[in-house]
Amino acid sequence: MRFGVFGTGEVGQALATKLVSLGHEVMLGSRQRGNEKAVAWSQRVGELGREGSFADAAQFGDILINATGGQVSLSALQAAGVADLPGMLLIDVSNPLQWTESGVGLCVCNTDSVGEQIQRAFPKLRVVKTLCTVNNQVMVNPSVVPGQHTMFLCGNDAAAKQQMLSILQEFGWPAENCMDLGDITASRAIEMLILLWLKVYDVVDTLHFNLHVVH
Amino acid sequence: MRFGVFGTGEVGQALATKLVSLGHEVMLGSRQRGNEKAVAWSQRVGELGREGSFADAAQFGDILINATGGQVSLSALQAAGVADLPGMLLIDVSNPLQWTESGVGLCVCNTDSVGEQIQRAFPKLRVVKTLCTVNNQVMVNPSVVPGQHTMFLCGNDAAAKQQMLSILQEFGWPAENCMDLGDITASRAIEMLILLWLKVYDVVDTLHFNLHVVH
Repeated sequence: MRFGVFGTGEVGQALATKLVSLGHEVMLGSRQRGNEKAVAWSQRVGELGREGSFADAAQFGDILINATGGQVSLSALQAAGVADLPGMLLIDVSNPLQWTESGVGLCVCNTDSVGEQIQRAFPKLRVVKTLCTVNNQVMVNPSVVPGQHTMFLCGNDAAAKQQMLSILQEFGWPAENCMDLGDITASRAIEMLILLWLKVYDVVDTLHFNLHVVH
Repeated sequence: MRFGVFGTGEVGQALATKLVSLGHEVMLGSRQRGNEKAVAWSQRVGELGREGSFADAAQFGDILINATGGQVSLSALQAAGVADLPGMLLIDVSNPLQWTESGVGLCVCNTDSVGEQIQRAFPKLRVVKTLCTVNNQVMVNPSVVPGQHTMFLCGNDAAAKQQMLSILQEFGWPAENCMDLGDITASRAIEMLILLWLKVYDVVDTLHFNLHVVH
């Protein structure tokens, strides 16, 4: 498959690198072609990896991944021209964190979420929200956390979620540990977990942790 | 010990009943003495259980538990006169859920929480936030969920959290499964979990579930 990944930060690079290691072709997209981090990445991973603008990546991919910050996701996707890609699967792994003078908070939460904002702004996309509840090292290698632990996902389109489940399994997530929380409004519950993540991280002092739903 | 429990709903009754079963004296407090549910409860549990007004329960208890709804907690505690109880441990198990025409949401979240509102309004109380992340049956009998799973707590006072840990252990929570997330600002992360709880409940179809921090 061909993937277009928006965002050249740690999350975008980790996902892009994993996809390449699985034999997929990946274009890492940023505001402008020639982004330093994206160029370095594409040179590092070899011929399956390319870099380009957000629009280049959108055109390249059969599947798109939004790994930009939640505050800038809408403008990045606008720049990518995804409104003209009806039916496209967009995997949204963004989180809504923002740091202000008074500390850390969410740019949207409670009765709305980044996942919903994206689905509303681009109603023809098939948005699936997932992966943002763990560090990027865990996203692409869940076995760094010992034992069973849960990956949440949600979205309005059942077939899109099935595709997502296949990708999660390629990443190493057993199907029985992937929990579909329903339509895209579940993004609210999923995105808010970043605040808990930060507090738990202070306690466990490792990036390699996750939550497991036990019942 | 003597406990004053504010709130006669399922959560208040479950906690009060458990405390009585452990041999503690409990007064279940409500807006007015003679509350029907509180009277029925006190008759059911026998001589260790009493009922009274919020103020009666506040005077009765060595330790107080707020099991009122997050939207009305401040007014309940005001009515209880807890401002005049310096140093008192208040265990806040409230959640900020509110149902509106547009669905379910939180009455406070993100950069504030009910736990913090209470601590600010009554700075001489020692507030500990905990237990609100599971159903009341799990609160008082964690073994209904199989295996290891996590109870979060937070608060500004270390000794108060130690007292809380003892109570959690009386309830059946192993110390190694209780995670102190820091000061009372961690209430934000803890209280927000109710939205995830609702979504997971839709999937697992049992009240007997919880999250476990795996690392």
